[in-house]
Amino acid sequence: MTDMQNDLYLRVLRGEKVERTPIWVMRQAGRYLPEYRATRKQAGDFLTLCKTPELACEVTMQPIDRFGLDAAILFSDILTIPDAMGLELVLEEGVGPVFNKPIRSQADINALGVPDPERELAYVMNAVRVIKAELNGRVPLIGFTGSPWTLASYMVEGSGSKEFRRIKGLMFESPAAAHQLLSVVTESVIQYLKAQVSAGAQSLMVFDTWGGMLSTEKYQAFSLAYMAQVVSAIKSDPACENVPIVLFTKGGGQWLEMMADTGCDGLGLDWTVDMAKAKQRVGDRVVLQGNMDPVVMNTGRAQVAEQAEQVLSCYGRHSKNDKGHIFNLGHGIQPFAKPDNMQALVETVQGQSAQYHD
Amino acid sequence: MTDMQNDLYLRVLRGEKVERTPIWVMRQAGRYLPEYRATRKQAGDFLTLCKTPELACEVTMQPIDRFGLDAAILFSDILTIPDAMGLELVLEEGVGPVFNKPIRSQADINALGVPDPERELAYVMNAVRVIKAELNGRVPLIGFTGSPWTLASYMVEGSGSKEFRRIKGLMFESPAAAHQLLSVVTESVIQYLKAQVSAGAQSLMVFDTWGGMLSTEKYQAFSLAYMAQVVSAIKSDPACENVPIVLFTKGGGQWLEMMADTGCDGLGLDWTVDMAKAKQRVGDRVVLQGNMDPVVMNTGRAQVAEQAEQVLSCYGRHSKNDKGHIFNLGHGIQPFAKPDNMQALVETVQGQSAQYHD
Repeated sequence: MTDMQNDLYLRVLRGEKVERTPIWVMRQAGRYLPEYRATRKQAGDFLTLCKTPELACEVTMQPIDRFGLDAAILFSDILTIPDAMGLELVLEEGVGPVFNKPIRSQADINALGVPDPERELAYVMNAVRVIKAELNGRVPLIGFTGSPWTLASYMVEGSGSKEFRRIKGLMFESPAAAHQLLSVVTESVIQYLKAQVSAGAQSLMVFDTWGGMLSTEKYQAFSLAYMAQVVSAIKSDPACENVPIVLFTKGGGQWLEMMADTGCDGLGLDWTVDMAKAKQRVGDRVVLQGNMDPVVMNTGRAQVAEQAEQVLSCYGRHSKNDKGHIFNLGHGIQPFAKPDNMQALVETVQGQSAQYHD
Repeated sequence: MTDMQNDLYLRVLRGEKVERTPIWVMRQAGRYLPEYRATRKQAGDFLTLCKTPELACEVTMQPIDRFGLDAAILFSDILTIPDAMGLELVLEEGVGPVFNKPIRSQADINALGVPDPERELAYVMNAVRVIKAELNGRVPLIGFTGSPWTLASYMVEGSGSKEFRRIKGLMFESPAAAHQLLSVVTESVIQYLKAQVSAGAQSLMVFDTWGGMLSTEKYQAFSLAYMAQVVSAIKSDPACENVPIVLFTKGGGQWLEMMADTGCDGLGLDWTVDMAKAKQRVGDRVVLQGNMDPVVMNTGRAQVAEQAEQVLSCYGRHSKNDKGHIFNLGHGIQPFAKPDNMQALVETVQGQSAQYHD
């Protein structure tokens, strides 16, 4: 790691002492940036952008170049795995993701295989390699996946959902089939993440977008248990040594203790979580990542600075008893956010956070 | 109260010992019931149904007659107050609520007045009176309101929302204007609830549908503080003596302690909350109401019985140290729920819960 110019993000996740709080932002390569919209227009559609490593690299680098963020995240979609399984992902502007061939029967589940990341998902691994080369050690590269529960939800619903009637119906009425589905998805996720590490990812993140729709009991059995398998597989693989893994369940603020029990290195917090309380609860066991309300990014620079300082002071002073803090929003930055506000956010965090570190 | 045939629900909320767990269901008068759909068709549209006391009474009684639930809840909409303030509520099937004249400026806020419940909202008070007479002491009647934050959110957004950009923008950029708006809404809510009690409501519930979209700090300042004012006003009014009040913030599972601090009698829990943990946290201070996942009502009778028993056992044995449990779903019953499942739910709760009571 000695050849990295800025390894602040990795040092926090490895429990090392740092001089200030690192910052990256979920969906930092996204529609709020005019240069992103230009590249996407050039690509034609979102999936082509994901599937063309040079273009994926271009948009990954844009926020790094423009704002000086402390980490880059692979530009891709969380639904690449089900697409590679044959469900045929379609991403249309304003509609959200849709699968042409959703899971509708036990036979559909039986037919699922674990994709070979270097074959069916080669475009992702190629993107990782191209981005890693382009970064050339400027900042660490984060690889990622959707959580098994989140992927299974999309696969069974066939699209986004408000009530999750289909996947919850499967869970309540045919729990064995739901577990079978989650098992094959989990194995796919594990191989996918390991391949990203082989290709050059230096840190991993699991996005559990829909785990927060479950009761506590069902969350443990149908989402967390599978994320725990993922963490365990990464942690026991010598090839992934020193590759930290962060779990993020949106709406999971009640479950931080059991999430930390998985052995992960960090937890993403959505903006509803009180950072000071989260630090008391699990801050001695995991790094906390988050958690400003993304809507603030649509207001003014003064509000952005004020709310960012609020998050920093809520985490408060860093001590050797705490694992540390990585600044982020509490969810992805939205298309209507102002690029100027991103500048203000980065300046505030990078400029004001040193006072909380010795 | 001695002339009530079934006052189980009120006895729990007054801290009295009961022989079994009472049950009512949010949106129990709703589209899942064929007889409701028939009455609504007769009314023409949802608002006419709300505004015609005899029809509102008819649909309020339907689930009581059919299932023998332990409480009735006034049939109305949470947005009656802004409608009475002149925002012109429109409720279209499949679209959700829309205001023709949403709040768009400081002048709009300045122009808001507190509606006189017995004039601009006379149809609600008349519905309460008609229902109360029709109930004739069979079960208690619950009155309700949207929370100040939830009403203000709809008023400023002009409709439902996913990101809440407008109301959060107001909160971050013009907090004084947001507080001014919340104050006039809170005063309206207080007068509205007091009038419902005068008209015959024997218990009150505040639905904070959107408080869970806020950070902990903003929730305290912009939602909870105003619900606390409502609780305080009801508790200090001799005319509301013995009228319990229950607060429900969807997504508020992290905030139960501070919600209990308002002095309310009960807390509604959504289905993500672990009932056993909630009991440990605040069960000695407030009654807990909830919290089965509404989606279960779309599965089979066996699943309904199993999940209902799960909730009962999660609350566990009742002792004099706990305030008690009222069974409910964790959110409103959905249009696709099966009426047979409601029967199974009521049978399970009324039949199985006695074992948890001495």
